[in-house]
Amino acid sequence: MWSTSEQGRAALVQAFGPRRVLTDSRDRMAYAYDATGEKYLCDAVFFPESTAEVVEAVRIARRHGLPVVPRGAGTNISGGTLPVRGGLVLAMNRMNRILAIDPDDRIAAVQPGVPNIQLQQALAPHGFFFAADPGSHRVSTLGGNVAENSGGPHCLKYGVTTNHVRGLEVVLADGEVVRVGGRTQEAPPGYDLLALLVGAEGTLAVVTAIDLHILPLPPSRRTILAVYDQLEAAATTVSAIVAARLVPASIELLDRGMIACVEPFAHAGYPADADAVLLIEVDGTPAAVERAAARIAEIATGSGARQVRSARDQAEQDALWLGRRVAYGAAARLSAHVWTQDVTVPRDRMVEALRAVEAIGRKWRVQVVTVAHAGDGNLHPLIPFNPQDHDEVERMKAADHEIVAACVKLGGSVTGEHGVGIDKLPTLPLQYGPAELEVMQRLKRALDPDEVLNPGKAIPAPRRNV
Amino acid sequence: MWSTSEQGRAALVQAFGPRRVLTDSRDRMAYAYDATGEKYLCDAVFFPESTAEVVEAVRIARRHGLPVVPRGAGTNISGGTLPVRGGLVLAMNRMNRILAIDPDDRIAAVQPGVPNIQLQQALAPHGFFFAADPGSHRVSTLGGNVAENSGGPHCLKYGVTTNHVRGLEVVLADGEVVRVGGRTQEAPPGYDLLALLVGAEGTLAVVTAIDLHILPLPPSRRTILAVYDQLEAAATTVSAIVAARLVPASIELLDRGMIACVEPFAHAGYPADADAVLLIEVDGTPAAVERAAARIAEIATGSGARQVRSARDQAEQDALWLGRRVAYGAAARLSAHVWTQDVTVPRDRMVEALRAVEAIGRKWRVQVVTVAHAGDGNLHPLIPFNPQDHDEVERMKAADHEIVAACVKLGGSVTGEHGVGIDKLPTLPLQYGPAELEVMQRLKRALDPDEVLNPGKAIPAPRRNV
Repeated sequence: MWSTSEQGRAALVQAFGPRRVLTDSRDRMAYAYDATGEKYLCDAVFFPESTAEVVEAVRIARRHGLPVVPRGAGTNISGGTLPVRGGLVLAMNRMNRILAIDPDDRIAAVQPGVPNIQLQQALAPHGFFFAADPGSHRVSTLGGNVAENSGGPHCLKYGVTTNHVRGLEVVLADGEVVRVGGRTQEAPPGYDLLALLVGAEGTLAVVTAIDLHILPLPPSRRTILAVYDQLEAAATTVSAIVAARLVPASIELLDRGMIACVEPFAHAGYPADADAVLLIEVDGTPAAVERAAARIAEIATGSGARQVRSARDQAEQDALWLGRRVAYGAAARLSAHVWTQDVTVPRDRMVEALRAVEAIGRKWRVQVVTVAHAGDGNLHPLIPFNPQDHDEVERMKAADHEIVAACVKLGGSVTGEHGVGIDKLPTLPLQYGPAELEVMQRLKRALDPDEVLNPGKAIPAPRRNV
Repeated sequence: MWSTSEQGRAALVQAFGPRRVLTDSRDRMAYAYDATGEKYLCDAVFFPESTAEVVEAVRIARRHGLPVVPRGAGTNISGGTLPVRGGLVLAMNRMNRILAIDPDDRIAAVQPGVPNIQLQQALAPHGFFFAADPGSHRVSTLGGNVAENSGGPHCLKYGVTTNHVRGLEVVLADGEVVRVGGRTQEAPPGYDLLALLVGAEGTLAVVTAIDLHILPLPPSRRTILAVYDQLEAAATTVSAIVAARLVPASIELLDRGMIACVEPFAHAGYPADADAVLLIEVDGTPAAVERAAARIAEIATGSGARQVRSARDQAEQDALWLGRRVAYGAAARLSAHVWTQDVTVPRDRMVEALRAVEAIGRKWRVQVVTVAHAGDGNLHPLIPFNPQDHDEVERMKAADHEIVAACVKLGGSVTGEHGVGIDKLPTLPLQYGPAELEVMQRLKRALDPDEVLNPGKAIPAPRRNV
């Protein structure tokens, strides 16, 4: 007799045909990973091409007790796309059409499988862009960005994904299609379902269409590199910029270890003996950019930067940004694997956080190099490690947990922009009490009582209804 | 034998003392109204002074089957603060302390009973302001603003209340205290409870403390009045301003009827024979304001304005705004009462909406005068009427319903910034299908299964759990 999952697979194959449902274990293996590095084999992979097919697939999966795990490009680094309980992976990559671009109404309607960069390329000729620019934007999909509420270097000025989603079409766990949000500017009546679904990591609904708010491309931008002998002076610069009421598009920080790691690789011109560098980008009208850049250079110098460079043209800007852009790749060269952490602290606790990260690295004898969205208080400590070296893996995990705990203690959050997935579930109770978590569990039970949708992610598993 | 409500009252009096719980019917009558004009008598009124007292009051009320209706200044015009099923009115007016103002972190921590204007006055010396400025801001409380997700003329540039709430402390229906959101800039992990609770009209939780994001006061502002012989030219101006990528702080529109109504009262200098006027405010640095104002004057003239005036000083600005500010008062002079509608349409459907409103007024023989946040597509048609004239009341109601239906048909929403309350419940199904409403009802059941908190508001009453 067939197991439930085999019955489920057979029903999917029957509904959509054998060419459109992957059941072979070698094929399924390709969908067992995301960028987190862990592995969970699913029972089947299906590539829906319409909302109606998502509905049908969800209904079949539910009937056969198969969890449904929506997946975009699989760049998730908190485990959000891993099929931890097996089931059906809904690979959304064929729902990849840009449905409409309306510059007058400042809206782009897309299917969830559209890669972020593809929308940016389509918007550029209209003079517009979509604000969220996660590091993965060359591959990650807009559906994934919505599920994870992605950020990026520019969210200092422009906010994260949730600030730019105006409407969603979603499929609920029972197969109902629901449209939330609306095309008007103000909040739609009733409860804010839109905000609830953005960042829910596919645990409450499968996103099948997205209306995104788009922004005019700034006519001018300028990048400033400021080099520091003391991390503290970099932090003073950030505070002084904010106090001066300047709003740069981004303020990125690389610490000493990160500089040492990227410079030999990228030759971005970051001095090897610096304690920190800041990369500050301003955008706007040419006159406003000119004024802001001059003011920021002044502030950086006044705060103790030993060197301040302002990129005058695109080539210089690209060169300055290169060191930031290659940060993950450079860190990945230090060992067989690199663990990427994502935590936040209040902006004015950044120095304490970075110093704590350094001390924790020393304590556990692991190398930690950090790149940070300093304007947002969002840190990404990276820990290179060798997965074969079990002792090092244990020390990496211990250091990693202590880093999260230290940041929460400073008033921060266990995740900034990479989501909870499965990775942050153990650290959620550092930040939330049982009452907060219970509220989230009640919402999950209300919308997905049988835990069909991406179970075991984003929030601690709710108690079952009895 | 006592009724349940009498037992509940007695328990409240016993817990908090007879001086702090109003039970006399004359006292309770003062809390039977909000600005909507309907009347529902509650069983008791209590003025909590701490979160712990809110917890205790909610627990007592729940135990005795008394609904709990949180209330601020009672300026609600959709019925959100009316005790439609009796019960306990929680008058939050004594929880009225500003707890902290932190300009560096751009945060103000307040209790819910603080009037909006009081926070603005406290922020001004620091050079900051809170973005939401509903028409009621001189009296309405920040707790009420959060519950209704209030807007105001400046939400074109700055967004509505939900865009500026960073954290909430709330009391749930079971008396649990929960803190949602956080002081860091990025979205906290898990589901976005903050967005869910803002605008929920007190139906999911009672707000007991609020962390608000505050903004630097713009150093300069300028108001431009543009006068039109044709409404269409005013709409063209709005579109052209947006297409030119200018973001005024506000774009307000008064239609012919509204001009005729305010001008004899306020002498704001709006020509009596104009078909529409726009009041456009720009803010920012003096140089940016100068440039934007010049460009907007050019655009208005180019779009067919017969007259464009730019206010050079504060006195001139105040004079131009006077006509807008007195709009409700002026409309209220036309009859014994005035009904205030609040609907939205996509910005580019504003002319069609206003023409539809005029036609509906003619059809039902009621006077309709309209003021609109034209940049947001948010209309406030006002219908003066005599509550003693039952035929006129019926015609007013019919016209009102048709106005909402017409706007929804144009792609709009049944409410812009005044909430659903009880007033918009009958029109919600124009905008939402049963699936959308069912999702909201499931959330309500999940957090408040016994319908303790402000029952019968914001969403259609959920089916009871069985």
